[in-house]
Order: sequence, then C-alpha cells, then structure tokens
Amino acid sequence: MFEQLGLIGCGLMGGSFALALKRAKLVKRVVGYSKSPSTTERARQLGVIDVAAPSALLAVSGSDLVLLAVPVVASEATFKAIRHGISSDTLVMDVGSTKGDVIEAARNGLQDQFAHFVPAHPIAGKEVSGIEHAEASLYTGRKVVLTPVKATLRSNVQRASQIWSGIGAHVVTMAPEEHDGAFAAVSHLPHLLAFAYINALIAQPQGDQFLRLAGPGFRDFSRIAAGDPVMWRDVLLANREQVLLQSQAFRKALLDLEALMTAVDAQALEHSIAAASKARTAWQPNTDAPQDS
Amino acid sequence: MFEQLGLIGCGLMGGSFALALKRAKLVKRVVGYSKSPSTTERARQLGVIDVAAPSALLAVSGSDLVLLAVPVVASEATFKAIRHGISSDTLVMDVGSTKGDVIEAARNGLQDQFAHFVPAHPIAGKEVSGIEHAEASLYTGRKVVLTPVKATLRSNVQRASQIWSGIGAHVVTMAPEEHDGAFAAVSHLPHLLAFAYINALIAQPQGDQFLRLAGPGFRDFSRIAAGDPVMWRDVLLANREQVLLQSQAFRKALLDLEALMTAVDAQALEHSIAAASKARTAWQPNTDAPQDS
Repeated sequence: MFEQLGLIGCGLMGGSFALALKRAKLVKRVVGYSKSPSTTERARQLGVIDVAAPSALLAVSGSDLVLLAVPVVASEATFKAIRHGISSDTLVMDVGSTKGDVIEAARNGLQDQFAHFVPAHPIAGKEVSGIEHAEASLYTGRKVVLTPVKATLRSNVQRASQIWSGIGAHVVTMAPEEHDGAFAAVSHLPHLLAFAYINALIAQPQGDQFLRLAGPGFRDFSRIAAGDPVMWRDVLLANREQVLLQSQAFRKALLDLEALMTAVDAQALEHSIAAASKARTAWQPNTDAPQDS
Repeated sequence: MFEQLGLIGCGLMGGSFALALKRAKLVKRVVGYSKSPSTTERARQLGVIDVAAPSALLAVSGSDLVLLAVPVVASEATFKAIRHGISSDTLVMDVGSTKGDVIEAARNGLQDQFAHFVPAHPIAGKEVSGIEHAEASLYTGRKVVLTPVKATLRSNVQRASQIWSGIGAHVVTMAPEEHDGAFAAVSHLPHLLAFAYINALIAQPQGDQFLRLAGPGFRDFSRIAAGDPVMWRDVLLANREQVLLQSQAFRKALLDLEALMTAVDAQALEHSIAAASKARTAWQPNTDAPQDS
C-alpha cells in the first residue's frame, strides 16, 4: 500500500493507472498534475485524482510513488522538474513505449536520483486518448515490461513488479535494448507499415473510391494507422534505428513475395504464405507465463 | 423466389449463401455438390443442402439459380462441367475475390451460356473455412460487388441484385477491372503485407521471443496473415499485376517515411503520419450508400 501517488500527466495511461490503484486499494491518495490546468481539474472532477497540484514538483513532493505519463519527448524536462521532490523511499516509473531514450532522459534529468527510477512499458492503450477514456481495467491481463538497468534500486524493481501485478498486469523484465528491438518488431514497425499503407492509398486518385469498398480485413489491418501522430512521431524517432532495421527486413520479405508472384511460382508462393499463416495461427496473446516475474 | 439452388462447393461461402436464402425464404430446395463426397454429405446432414448431387452437372440440372463457390483456380473446369445443365432461365454466380480471371474462365468454360453468368464478389469471410462455419448471417450488412460485362444478360444482373439485397447485403456494381484494381488496394495488398510482415518476423532468430510480447495492435494488424494459403496464393496470382502495382506504391510510401526517420525530420514525419491517421479515422465501413444499386 502506498501513501500517495504523484501522477504527472493526467491522460488515458496515467488516469487508468490511478483508477486501477484506487480500485485495488493500493494507494491512499492521488495527487495529479498536467501541463494544462484544465486537464488536471477535469481529472479531479472525474475522481481520477484527489488533489490537483500546481506543478510537477508539488505533485511529487510527499509521494512515495510517482508515475510519469507524459509524451516521451517531455521526459527529460519532467525528470529535471521533479528531481528535488524525490526522497529515499520514492519509486518513480514511466509508461513510455520506448525505453532506451527514456532511460537516457532519466539519467540526465534525475541525476543522483536515477536509481529510484524503474522504466516501465505497459502494453495497453486505445485509439482514443484523454482522461475521459481512462478506465481502471486498462491494464488488466496486459503485459508490463520493466527494463531496469545496473544502477536501478533492486528494491524499487520489486515494488514496481508488485504494483503492476496488484492491478492485474503480467510483469516481464528485460534489458532496455532487448525491449526496444522487440517492440520495433511487434509494435513500431506495424504502425509504420499501417501509416505507409494508408498514405499510399490516399495518394492515388481513386483512393477515396477504394476506401469505400474496404471490408473487415482492411478495418483490422489498418486500425493502428489511426494512432496519435505526435505520439507515433516520437516513438518512431526515439527508436528509429531498430525500426529502420525491422523495416529493411520487412521490405526484403515483401520483395521475396513479389518475386514469387512475378515468376508465377505457385508452389513457392503457397509455401511462403503457409509459413506466415501457420505462425500467425499459432500465435496467442499473453502466452508467456514462463517469462512472467 | 427460386425453385432450386444448385450449389457447387459446400464450404463456408457457399453454405452461408444457401442458409441465407433458406432463412429469407428465397429458395425452395438446395441441391449441393462438393468435390469430396463426405463434404457434400456433411452439408446435407447439417441441413445446409437438401439433396446431395453426385456431380456438378447434376446439381445444376433443374436449378434456376447456381452458385459456384469453389477455389478460383477450379472455376474454368467447373464452368465446363456445368455448361450443359444451364437452361434459358438459369442465373449463375460465383463468389470469387478476383473477377477478371473468373470472367475469362467463364467465357472459356460456359461458351454460348456465358450471358447467364453474373460475376459476384461478396465482401465477407472468416479466418476459418468449411461447411461447419457456414452461417445464414455471413452476408448481412456486407457489400457484394457485381461485375457484369457487355454480354451479361441484364435480366440476370437484376435478379442477382435482388437475391443479394434479399439476404441483407448491399449491392455495388462496377467494371471487372475497376473491381480488381480496388481490391488489390484494399484487400489483396494488405494480405500480402501481413504475410511479408510475419515472414520477416519469423526469419529472425529472436522471432519467437518477439511474438510473445506482441499486443492488441499486432493482433489486429496481422490477423489476415492467418488466411488460407491456397486461396491467397490463387488470389495473389490471379490479380498479380494490380497487386504488384499497389505494392510498388506502398514501398514508395514506406521509403518516404523511412527517409523522414533517417533525417530526423520530426515535422514532416508528424505531417505524414497525421495524414494517414486522419484518413483512417474518417473511414467508416459500409458508408457507400449512394453507390448501392
């Protein structure tokens, strides 16, 4: 049980975390801060936070648990702003989709308090954002990846793991580089491909006409192209090296399939599609129980 | 009201059509034929068809409505086999995802009976196939594209339109080339990309590990990669020219995004993602009411 959660960034991710902790009775009080005072006030009105703080530092002061749920590019400035509010028993976490860059920002921003920070990436979200869409169950049954480094306090990693487990999430621990490579492959690249796909469609004169004929396959395949442009700009730039490597590998696989089509090599084409189909059919969400910590 | 539906191919698509016609009381009797006698028998046991025919020709004889729901590559042989069972009041349709090649197969196979054939593509399906998954509502609320050509009997186009409307589908009419271009863009290319994406993943040593971390974005984006390899091999080959054109356009859009990432051009990258996000957010399934016929 924590005395006080200091929530920096009262949006979908942060608000859902606060609601989940409250529901699980893991926190007594939530003090929130958002860059926009009207957002903070709205979060208070909705009961997501109990107290609206006028600054990030004041939200952190007296909090034994701090969650940064701000755009990844705002990380370093936010860490700097809260550094002096961190005490010996404070656990600081984030919710960013990329970890290498946030850890770098934390090193620079938190400096001698860096050991208190446990990098966290809950694999959850919605196509909509904002405090209005926050819900206590957003993280239930979802994976949360923790990427502690050498300097991270072991006791804080343990506490972080307990909190996420306590709100129903499955905790996985890995190295930051490993995380960023894996998420380039299973999340960032699919988003890049979905954006490119829609851009290629709408660049064609008949694009609108094509879109009117699209069915359920299109709907699911392209859903992630509706993601937030600022957030995805930041993710793709923060993890660009890994994403570009994955994109290259993808283009190679695409050219291989194109070559089989051009050659009308039915057997090899079927073989290649069958490999993909088999792997995708075998895939199950949340089957990594042995990896859970 | 039709006297008799001759169903060639008792699978998901054909079986669902038979069930839908029965539910809407648009047909008195369904005579079915599948290449495998056990499938035909199963369809009869499930009540999808009333009578099991020992050949395609016998299923068609005496039927005023015929639906070919066979793999696209089997079209020409099937048309040939049923040609002599077609009478002056028979309406023949198919359910293929590509139209140019099926029309060609019908010309060759049906010869002087070609005018009876109304090419149809219902935009519906499931990741699973087989008669066991057939359901009367598969086509409800879905689009069906009819692609008649000059030689097609106008009266049959009208009857075809009425049947599909009668089972709750939205009928759209267009030229075969227009159809094949549009579906290369909104269906065949996404499948090709999803297959290539999974292939690129599993070709990596850490592929399995990556897959265990995949979340809901991956789930939806890659769902269509689980499609039937034989069917998609045939679709991609049948429509390969259009699909290859769309794939080229896609690769250009992908390289454009990659270039913005490499240059760390945050503004242009956001702009490009925003265009895709806006278009995808604005997209609504089944909003083409003005196109319905």
